[in-house]
Amino acid sequence: MKNNNTNNLIYGKNPILEILEKSPNRLNKIYIQQGISYDNRLKKIINEANNKKIIIQKTNLQKFKDNFEEDTNFQGVIASVSSVEYIELEDFLATEKKGFKRLIVLDEVQDPHNFGAIVRTAAAAGFDGILVSNHRSCPITPVVEKISSGAINHIPIIKTTSLSAGIDILKKHDFWVIATQMQAKDNYFEIDYTDMNFALVMGSEGSGISKTILNKADFKVKILSNFESLNVSNAAAVIMYEAVRQLYLKSKKS
Amino acid sequence: MKNNNTNNLIYGKNPILEILEKSPNRLNKIYIQQGISYDNRLKKIINEANNKKIIIQKTNLQKFKDNFEEDTNFQGVIASVSSVEYIELEDFLATEKKGFKRLIVLDEVQDPHNFGAIVRTAAAAGFDGILVSNHRSCPITPVVEKISSGAINHIPIIKTTSLSAGIDILKKHDFWVIATQMQAKDNYFEIDYTDMNFALVMGSEGSGISKTILNKADFKVKILSNFESLNVSNAAAVIMYEAVRQLYLKSKKS
Repeated sequence: MKNNNTNNLIYGKNPILEILEKSPNRLNKIYIQQGISYDNRLKKIINEANNKKIIIQKTNLQKFKDNFEEDTNFQGVIASVSSVEYIELEDFLATEKKGFKRLIVLDEVQDPHNFGAIVRTAAAAGFDGILVSNHRSCPITPVVEKISSGAINHIPIIKTTSLSAGIDILKKHDFWVIATQMQAKDNYFEIDYTDMNFALVMGSEGSGISKTILNKADFKVKILSNFESLNVSNAAAVIMYEAVRQLYLKSKKS
Repeated sequence: MKNNNTNNLIYGKNPILEILEKSPNRLNKIYIQQGISYDNRLKKIINEANNKKIIIQKTNLQKFKDNFEEDTNFQGVIASVSSVEYIELEDFLATEKKGFKRLIVLDEVQDPHNFGAIVRTAAAAGFDGILVSNHRSCPITPVVEKISSGAINHIPIIKTTSLSAGIDILKKHDFWVIATQMQAKDNYFEIDYTDMNFALVMGSEGSGISKTILNKADFKVKILSNFESLNVSNAAAVIMYEAVRQLYLKSKKS
C-alpha cells in the first residue's frame, strides 16, 4: 500500500474475515466490487457483516487504486478500518457512572477536520461519548485521529445503525435530547445542563439536523450570530463549554 | 496557472509593481528567487515593498513550479495575494464605534482551517476585527476564504508589522489585553467582557502565545480541560461566545 494518509484500508477476503471475527468494532465499512461473483468466502463476509451491522457498499473499487501497489490482488473486497474500536450504544448505556452522562450526537457530520476537532473538545470538556450512525458519518480516518490530537483514544465513539433509533433508546434511558437549530427560540445558555443526562445533537454543515431527529428533541437551542451559522465544531465547542461552565459554578456552590 | 486552490499567486515584475502601487493591502508576501541579480525593476519592487511593510522572502521558487504552466516566465519574483484588503491597525483604531471594541489577536496561527474558522466565528460573534502580524501568520488563501464561509469579507483583517508593537498601540488606545494560557489561574468565564475594549490573544497550536506578549497581558485566562488543550479555533469560539453571552444578558437587564 502506498500513500495512506486518508484512510486505513485492508484488502482481500481472508484478512477481512479475520478482522470481522477478531475486531469487528474497528470496521468502518466494507466495499465490494460491483458485479463480482460471490464465492463462499465472500458470502461469509457478507453474512458476518450483516450480523455485526457493518455497512457494505457495492462500488467501483477503481477509486481505491491509488492506494495499492500495482500487483496487489484485492480480490474485489476492501475494508476501511479504524485504529480505535467503536462501542455499541447498549454497551455504553450499561456502563456505570456517578452523576449524569453527557453525549454529543453527530447527525451526518462528514468532514474529518470537524469530526476530529469535536472529538478533541468533547474529551477536553469531559463528555462521556460521541454517538454516530453506522451509515452516514465520517469514518475514523488517520486525519480524524490527527486532528483529534489523540483524543480519539480518550472518549468512546459510540455506533448505532440508525441515529433516530439510537435517540429513541437514549430517551428510554432518561436522556434529554438537545438539538441545535438557527431558528430556535431559546439561546443555548438558557437551559440548565447540570441536572440531567443529555444528548447534544449537532447537524451537518450542509443540511443541519434531519427533521425526524428535530421532532424527537426535548429542547431546541440556537447560537446568536451576526453572520450565518458557525462551523459545526465551533458550535459544538461553544455549547459543550457552556455545560462545563455551569457544572463548574454548581460544584463551587456545593 | 494550473491548480491554484492553495494560494492566489501573481508572478513577474510588472504585475507585482502594479499591485504594489494599486492595492498593496492585498499583498500577503513577495517571494524572490535566491541568488538572482537585481535589475532596476526588482530594486523598485524591494523599495516599494519595504516602504509599504510588505514581507519579502528570498527562497527557492522551485516550490511554486506546480502552479505554473511550463512556459511561464516568472522573472524570479512571485507574490501571494489575498482577495481581500488588509487594514492597517491605525486605520482600524480611527474608525468610530458606539460602545466597546472587541478584537481577536492571532499570534502565529498558521493553519488555514483554524484561521478560516476563527474568521467565521468572530464575524458571527460580532467582533470588530482580527489582528495578525505581517510576518508569521497564515496568509489569506482560498482555503481560508472557503473555510470562513465568506466571513472574510465581513470582518476587518488588521495587519501590524510586529504583534508586540501592535499590542502596545492597542493598550495606548484603552484596550485591555486578554491572553489564553493553560496554566492561568482564572477561568475565561470569570472576567467581565462587557465593560471594556479588549483584545483576546490566541496562540499557535505548537507554541502557544509568545512570552513577550504574555508579559503585556492584563488578564491571563484558561479553559478547563480533562484532556490537553483545545484546538485554537474551538478555544477562540468558546471565549468569544462567553463574551457574547455576557453582552446578551447585560442588554436584557438594561
